[in-house]
Amino acid sequence: MEKIPYKIYLTEEEMPKKWYNVRADMKNKPAPLLNPKTLKPMGYEDLRPVFCDELIQQELDDTTAYIDIPEEIRNFYKMYRPSPLVRAYCLEEKLKTPAKIYYKFEGNNTSGSHKLNSAIAQAYYAKKQGLKGVTTETGAGQWGTALSMACAYFGLECHVYMVKCSYEQKPFRREVMRTYGAQVTPSPSDTTEVGRKILKEFPGTDGSLGCAISEAVEAATSHNGYRYVLGSVLNQVMLHQSIIGLESKIALDKYGVKPDIIIGCAGGGSNLGGLISPFVGEMIKGNADYQIIAAEPASCPSFTRGKFAYDYCDTGMVCPLAKMYTLGSGFMPAPGHAGGLRYHGMSSTLSQLYADGLMEACSVIQTDVFAAATEFARCEGILPAPESSHAIKIAIDEAVKCRETGEDKTILFGLTGTGYFDMTAYKSFNDGNMSDYIPTDEVLEKGFATIPDVKL
Amino acid sequence: MEKIPYKIYLTEEEMPKKWYNVRADMKNKPAPLLNPKTLKPMGYEDLRPVFCDELIQQELDDTTAYIDIPEEIRNFYKMYRPSPLVRAYCLEEKLKTPAKIYYKFEGNNTSGSHKLNSAIAQAYYAKKQGLKGVTTETGAGQWGTALSMACAYFGLECHVYMVKCSYEQKPFRREVMRTYGAQVTPSPSDTTEVGRKILKEFPGTDGSLGCAISEAVEAATSHNGYRYVLGSVLNQVMLHQSIIGLESKIALDKYGVKPDIIIGCAGGGSNLGGLISPFVGEMIKGNADYQIIAAEPASCPSFTRGKFAYDYCDTGMVCPLAKMYTLGSGFMPAPGHAGGLRYHGMSSTLSQLYADGLMEACSVIQTDVFAAATEFARCEGILPAPESSHAIKIAIDEAVKCRETGEDKTILFGLTGTGYFDMTAYKSFNDGNMSDYIPTDEVLEKGFATIPDVKL
Repeated sequence: MEKIPYKIYLTEEEMPKKWYNVRADMKNKPAPLLNPKTLKPMGYEDLRPVFCDELIQQELDDTTAYIDIPEEIRNFYKMYRPSPLVRAYCLEEKLKTPAKIYYKFEGNNTSGSHKLNSAIAQAYYAKKQGLKGVTTETGAGQWGTALSMACAYFGLECHVYMVKCSYEQKPFRREVMRTYGAQVTPSPSDTTEVGRKILKEFPGTDGSLGCAISEAVEAATSHNGYRYVLGSVLNQVMLHQSIIGLESKIALDKYGVKPDIIIGCAGGGSNLGGLISPFVGEMIKGNADYQIIAAEPASCPSFTRGKFAYDYCDTGMVCPLAKMYTLGSGFMPAPGHAGGLRYHGMSSTLSQLYADGLMEACSVIQTDVFAAATEFARCEGILPAPESSHAIKIAIDEAVKCRETGEDKTILFGLTGTGYFDMTAYKSFNDGNMSDYIPTDEVLEKGFATIPDVKL
Repeated sequence: MEKIPYKIYLTEEEMPKKWYNVRADMKNKPAPLLNPKTLKPMGYEDLRPVFCDELIQQELDDTTAYIDIPEEIRNFYKMYRPSPLVRAYCLEEKLKTPAKIYYKFEGNNTSGSHKLNSAIAQAYYAKKQGLKGVTTETGAGQWGTALSMACAYFGLECHVYMVKCSYEQKPFRREVMRTYGAQVTPSPSDTTEVGRKILKEFPGTDGSLGCAISEAVEAATSHNGYRYVLGSVLNQVMLHQSIIGLESKIALDKYGVKPDIIIGCAGGGSNLGGLISPFVGEMIKGNADYQIIAAEPASCPSFTRGKFAYDYCDTGMVCPLAKMYTLGSGFMPAPGHAGGLRYHGMSSTLSQLYADGLMEACSVIQTDVFAAATEFARCEGILPAPESSHAIKIAIDEAVKCRETGEDKTILFGLTGTGYFDMTAYKSFNDGNMSDYIPTDEVLEKGFATIPDVKL
């Protein structure tokens, strides 16, 4: 076998032409979304006021395994994809580990993350439907940037509700979105009913994804020609993000490499879900076995300390309910530096896979994450996003275990993005001012109390 | 001929193993550096207190056409290279031009620019010589970031003097450098004699590359085990940066494409020199003909309004003199948003090529540059650095000319970096607050008056 290159790039011909829908192969399907008013499963017509038509079909489709990627989207993908699958030779050497470490790097585009994979798809379907614009929320700012780019490309209006703590920590993110022509509002804001309500209930809050979602949904449904789009959690997003896992698998297969461990950071599940989809598909079919690990922040531990239950997707309870691992829609995460992982819930597909024992989860504290990020940056060159660094931390831990046991496991992790807009967080770490927050059981109980008692 | 991919990546095997030294093929060699005290040509021994030994050999060598890239450097290159050569299909469509536009994108690494190509080489030779550390200056911050990354990789200390206006406009740049373990000082500072002198003479100045160079040189020569390294202007830098042009040429040759026009932004000349080297080599040998255009800011127009003369490379006149197009080492550029192009002089190799009629130059105003940057970002996805956007502006102009004449010229330009740390500048443009500065003849005359009267 020839030496594995530092970076494996697929050719345009090798790039996937279809997304993979893991739900089609799952034995236990993820539970359906529920109408927040009737608590009944939502169908196509129920979702039409909020979402784009074709995206609803993708959302509800749990039987079609492969879905064509339209040519317009594939052409956009060609501008920044394939993303490289990188062999972390330098990190391996630094750790003196017999493990082989690979990472799929999704940060080489202006949005700085994998979010563009779904943003361009969602903007495409909105344009195809003849809409005027879309609204959305953004946490770390990566999704909002990605959507702004996608909307600029297709000539759609874009209104972004940005979680206030990120809006303040990342002033330049807003400017990137503006450069792409988007309108950006810090959330919670007084521009929506739900925003005003949240501000009244939690004065001084620096927001959460859950709040911002509520505001964006309200803005979409109260303006003609608008729909709401979401960068994570939903099945459609996981479908679009399967491009990450598909490319990774093609690249590894090309060199006859089979990963033993697959790691991804998990906030709402968009990256992890996309990365693992085709691998999980193989597991379900009994063709292969992998150890899959979700890396989540100890400050917002949906998988490791949450409950598997139906819950509201947003703080304002205007969105559908999903069955998922959740800390409760009323859980208000403490300020922290991984805005993209501050979500109380989790993709219901990933939740079902976790409940079925097809994956594990592990939580990590913030200072450990930044120490891993810095170590990684210094030997692999890339300055990682705080979110991505949760996966780096677990990957390093696994590689160190291999050093101790002598096993030469193959580790694959998702490096979802870059940290160029997270220098406030790095500064806090460099200055030694970063603290770690782990919610007490009491805090969690308060969140759990907001989970409705729904049984289907 | 098969369809040209959106992005052409070389394989590891196709990547250059030698740098190309265009001076070896030049009929009129660039003039030698002069000792600032004696005004005599400087030899190897004269330069040893300032520069690393092997780098001096590269600096003085104008006869060896190809120089081996050491394996350690090639391994580092593999972490972020080859950089993609991108066909700007979307920009072409937007401009409705028959021209074919390609850009060599050097921004896909954490330094955000091509600067890493020379930084890693210079750090390698410093380490090989057993030095403790290096000092340098940085304008836009890209060179300083690149050097910090390179020094972290080889375990060298790194002290960066950062032009004050960039230090203030780009607070997060400093943090990236710190994350890589570098020490960063805004220049002019009171930590050096020359810095104190400049502060006294120009109170309130927001600095220039020339000042920062003086400080970094003083810091290097007054500390044991340190040498000074420079990210532009020098012959050695152009040698290392030839990797840009070599990769571009290999990629184009692979698809049988010959550029008609080659465009690069020019501050000190590192990117432009690297990009055009192998093409100019072909021109000199009579094998091909290209129209080569240097894009420079109207606010700091070394080529288009400067004088071709021996001048000091730095404001403090502690550095050697070089024969180059210069505005005078006493020229103090107005505040602006392309820190990397605020240099009074120009690479002496490029200056000689320009004097010999092998290339042209064109100056552009700041608001036109940002308008071009925004147009490019919206259709090609990448948010470009202000410096790089000077080349984009000229490339768009040339493509529009083709639309008017109907010619289907092939245009290649260097997209040196990303603008993620330049959002203050974009904000100023987005807010409509950006102004254009063009120095008056009187201002230029004041600068010219500082050019010494040296004839060899």
